[in-house]
Amino acid sequence: MFVERPRSHVSALTPPREHFCDPAQFRRELEAIHFSMWLYAARADELPSVGSFVTRRFADAEVLLVRDEAGVLRAFHNVCRHRGTRLCHDEAGRVAGLIQCRYHAWTYRLDGRLEKAFHMEEVEGFRAEDFPLASVAVAEWGGFVFVCLSASPPPFAEHLAGLDVKFAAWQLDELVTVERRAYTLKANWKLVVANYHECLHCPVAHPQLNRLSHYLSGDNEPMQPTYMGARMELKPGVTTLSTSMSPPRSPLPGLNDEQRRHVYYYALLPNLLLNLHPDYGVAFRMNAAAVDRTEVVCEWLMHRDEVARPGFDASDAIDFWHQTNLQDWELSDLAQAGISSRGYRPGPYSNREDLLVAFDEWVLAKLVR
Amino acid sequence: MFVERPRSHVSALTPPREHFCDPAQFRRELEAIHFSMWLYAARADELPSVGSFVTRRFADAEVLLVRDEAGVLRAFHNVCRHRGTRLCHDEAGRVAGLIQCRYHAWTYRLDGRLEKAFHMEEVEGFRAEDFPLASVAVAEWGGFVFVCLSASPPPFAEHLAGLDVKFAAWQLDELVTVERRAYTLKANWKLVVANYHECLHCPVAHPQLNRLSHYLSGDNEPMQPTYMGARMELKPGVTTLSTSMSPPRSPLPGLNDEQRRHVYYYALLPNLLLNLHPDYGVAFRMNAAAVDRTEVVCEWLMHRDEVARPGFDASDAIDFWHQTNLQDWELSDLAQAGISSRGYRPGPYSNREDLLVAFDEWVLAKLVR
Amino acid sequence: MFVERPRSHVSALTPPREHFCDPAQFRRELEAIHFSMWLYAARADELPSVGSFVTRRFADAEVLLVRDEAGVLRAFHNVCRHRGTRLCHDEAGRVAGLIQCRYHAWTYRLDGRLEKAFHMEEVEGFRAEDFPLASVAVAEWGGFVFVCLSASPPPFAEHLAGLDVKFAAWQLDELVTVERRAYTLKANWKLVVANYHECLHCPVAHPQLNRLSHYLSGDNEPMQPTYMGARMELKPGVTTLSTSMSPPRSPLPGLNDEQRRHVYYYALLPNLLLNLHPDYGVAFRMNAAAVDRTEVVCEWLMHRDEVARPGFDASDAIDFWHQTNLQDWELSDLAQAGISSRGYRPGPYSNREDLLVAFDEWVLAKLVR
Repeated sequence: MFVERPRSHVSALTPPREHFCDPAQFRRELEAIHFSMWLYAARADELPSVGSFVTRRFADAEVLLVRDEAGVLRAFHNVCRHRGTRLCHDEAGRVAGLIQCRYHAWTYRLDGRLEKAFHMEEVEGFRAEDFPLASVAVAEWGGFVFVCLSASPPPFAEHLAGLDVKFAAWQLDELVTVERRAYTLKANWKLVVANYHECLHCPVAHPQLNRLSHYLSGDNEPMQPTYMGARMELKPGVTTLSTSMSPPRSPLPGLNDEQRRHVYYYALLPNLLLNLHPDYGVAFRMNAAAVDRTEVVCEWLMHRDEVARPGFDASDAIDFWHQTNLQDWELSDLAQAGISSRGYRPGPYSNREDLLVAFDEWVLAKLVR
Repeated sequence: MFVERPRSHVSALTPPREHFCDPAQFRRELEAIHFSMWLYAARADELPSVGSFVTRRFADAEVLLVRDEAGVLRAFHNVCRHRGTRLCHDEAGRVAGLIQCRYHAWTYRLDGRLEKAFHMEEVEGFRAEDFPLASVAVAEWGGFVFVCLSASPPPFAEHLAGLDVKFAAWQLDELVTVERRAYTLKANWKLVVANYHECLHCPVAHPQLNRLSHYLSGDNEPMQPTYMGARMELKPGVTTLSTSMSPPRSPLPGLNDEQRRHVYYYALLPNLLLNLHPDYGVAFRMNAAAVDRTEVVCEWLMHRDEVARPGFDASDAIDFWHQTNLQDWELSDLAQAGISSRGYRPGPYSNREDLLVAFDEWVLAKLVR
Repeated sequence: MFVERPRSHVSALTPPREHFCDPAQFRRELEAIHFSMWLYAARADELPSVGSFVTRRFADAEVLLVRDEAGVLRAFHNVCRHRGTRLCHDEAGRVAGLIQCRYHAWTYRLDGRLEKAFHMEEVEGFRAEDFPLASVAVAEWGGFVFVCLSASPPPFAEHLAGLDVKFAAWQLDELVTVERRAYTLKANWKLVVANYHECLHCPVAHPQLNRLSHYLSGDNEPMQPTYMGARMELKPGVTTLSTSMSPPRSPLPGLNDEQRRHVYYYALLPNLLLNLHPDYGVAFRMNAAAVDRTEVVCEWLMHRDEVARPGFDASDAIDFWHQTNLQDWELSDLAQAGISSRGYRPGPYSNREDLLVAFDEWVLAKLVR
């Protein structure tokens, strides 16, 4: 159960204060990381039919995701091309065929084409086709919808980097969202990622988790260009992470014995954290709102057949992770508070925090590019 | 009813994001525009008698307006000349003959002269006449009181630029304030001005207004050095803007037939917006509080004879403009939100937004001076 | 009773706006003054036994004060040496023998030594003795505990500069804290100091104080390198400052007749203000939280024999100073508001504000060093 790690050296230190506290570095990270990579934006089941939309904030960007007449998902900047007015105001909803700006009624089709711009016929050189909504790249995997705000998005397959194959057995697009909870952390987004990628803190912070899965059972995959992750073993007799002794769900169909004995913790960088248990998934969608503020939406994903069963009840899994989330968010807030203070000095990582060292380096490499 | 405008060209674009979001540009605008020009500060009827005062905030300035012993309006920085303490704390009130600082009791006459500075007789070279309240220029027109925070205020007549003659028939100093409502917008002050100077948004945003006055009836005057404005025609059978089918007010005395058929919308830049209806006025006093925050006070002005009538009721006009204001402020907030976001790109003005093009240029010309 | 002061000259002016409003100057003051000098942090009786701790914020620093196994007071940055997590979360409390970080359970002895760092044995070059809590200098006088955040703290005796001798008769370590109240001011810390060091404002702002002690009876000591102060005489028949005509306390033992006739107001710079009355003390602990925000904790200190008396009641002294505090804090807030405004110009000090002139110069001398 105890997975060994190579010895490390005391010279591997946590980053300087600026890494977590400097607004200028944060701006550079937005450009080099968040606005250059693919961002997890929504579960596809949030956009069930033609005209369904969600709006999603990423730092100072706001994306409008909408399902068009052909059933295709489209993403746009949520801004009218006329005078820059914010277009859709609700976090989710449904428009009837067209998107109309509330200011001067410029009207767009669901594929972003400008359908009607009142009184622009008196403007020489104006052509509606020159003013579609500013489109944003969209891609989908396993029911997760991603957007990329870059002018030249990297190929999505390159971003996925084989995770679709690795997690094929989980049949993620068969999962539906049974609960969604929003949290706001007073912590830099990288502290949330760091918290996610080591379980050294589990015995002290998460006794309920440590009882079910030993904190030294973490088996890390080496850092990848777009993702990082590990799996941890469930203790003998334990079938999943839950507040219940007999969790009321069957394992996901298609998992082999080894997959049923582990929980997988993967970050598809920079903003999706994904926990895969034998019988359900938990996804964390992050928004790096400010250098010291991160918004996290946690989603509980369960198999559609399970959800359809009479008496379906997910509260054991919801309670388990809600409790664990609160513990983690408090620690992340305390880390931000301490690192922000005058007394902070970089400290030594243990060899069980090897993924954090790799992540720090990954961030710095992005910034120097 | 439909007033034609010259064709425009698609190259006339809304300004870049900085124009509405950059704190440095905002500071330059304060210096070059707000603190160089005359600012609307109060209706004279707010200061009815000797000792009446109001305090008014303009960005980081605070002005104390007071009526002195001779009945003359005086304006000062609301700051004690001793140690800089804020002098008057209420937004309006009445002082009994003298203005006394609550800190060390330095006492000023209503004309600003320092009357008493305790224990300063032991200070060599101290002469009370060297420390009057710092005065601010005051001027008055039609019951509107203006201040100018510049060290060399432009002549007020030059500022008025003939508006007194143009609107003489309305006898504005016969109007009294029957209602005053304060609003705070999360929008740059220029977006409020822009919203005011086009009615393209009226059909979609103000159906109640558009029923009474056609949005294409706007007849713009060309942009002037200190003001800009237009008039719009009332539809046949409509006598004013009101929620009532039979508004309970006579027209203002002295208006000719043409004046009774129009509503006039004028901005005396940078902070007074003035709607003149056949039977009442509405004034908007703005404070550009921050790059993305504007405080607006809306005042309803009616003829004194009307107000004196038994059963006088202004609620039809108050309700009409309060409703319209809320619609406009929401749009201005949405414009600020959209322009602030990463997705904003300058967009094309229509030829019915010609005053906005002129206003953008006016601002830029002020800044390069 | 009226203590004369030398004549002054009108050229002695209050500082320019930046002195109180510029965040950059504030940062320089933190470095040159607050983080270079000794700061009042706690009364020793807040840390009665082994493991007792308090946490104290000074701008962006947070200090953990704890009484170790040997009964010695220790101070540390309240930050774990591992990943920088804030260590202790309560403002006061008691730890059982060891200080443990809630994140990864790094555990420190009360003297700051790192006792246990889990899984660091796999880290080459790691030695627990290299990672004690970052210590902060501590000193004590008269029951007041001070810390110094400088890497090379000045000798504490040099800081005290004889105040221990001057106030020996008050036997300050016999006093216990009977009340503690926290206030937050929207004012620069130097305005609080300035307010404290003149009584010109007393007739207008503190009538209840001026009835007991004449505002012109202030007898200033010349400005010292680390402190400044004055004493004021009680009026005939008045025995202390109190809301009661017959304050229910004996004078402190050991005071002579002259000491019993005065109240002493001393600032041990930069953050302790100390009022010594014949029968009790009041201490103000300041935190310069931001350029325009100061947190003040006011403590009422009375003799332990008095406190032990049946029916002991301190409300007369508590009410008196709470009322006076509110008056002073409001004036300090108004001073900040006025000085922040565009209308502020430096104004002339009277000769009864000589300590303020000296304090302004003291600050500037610290900054140019």
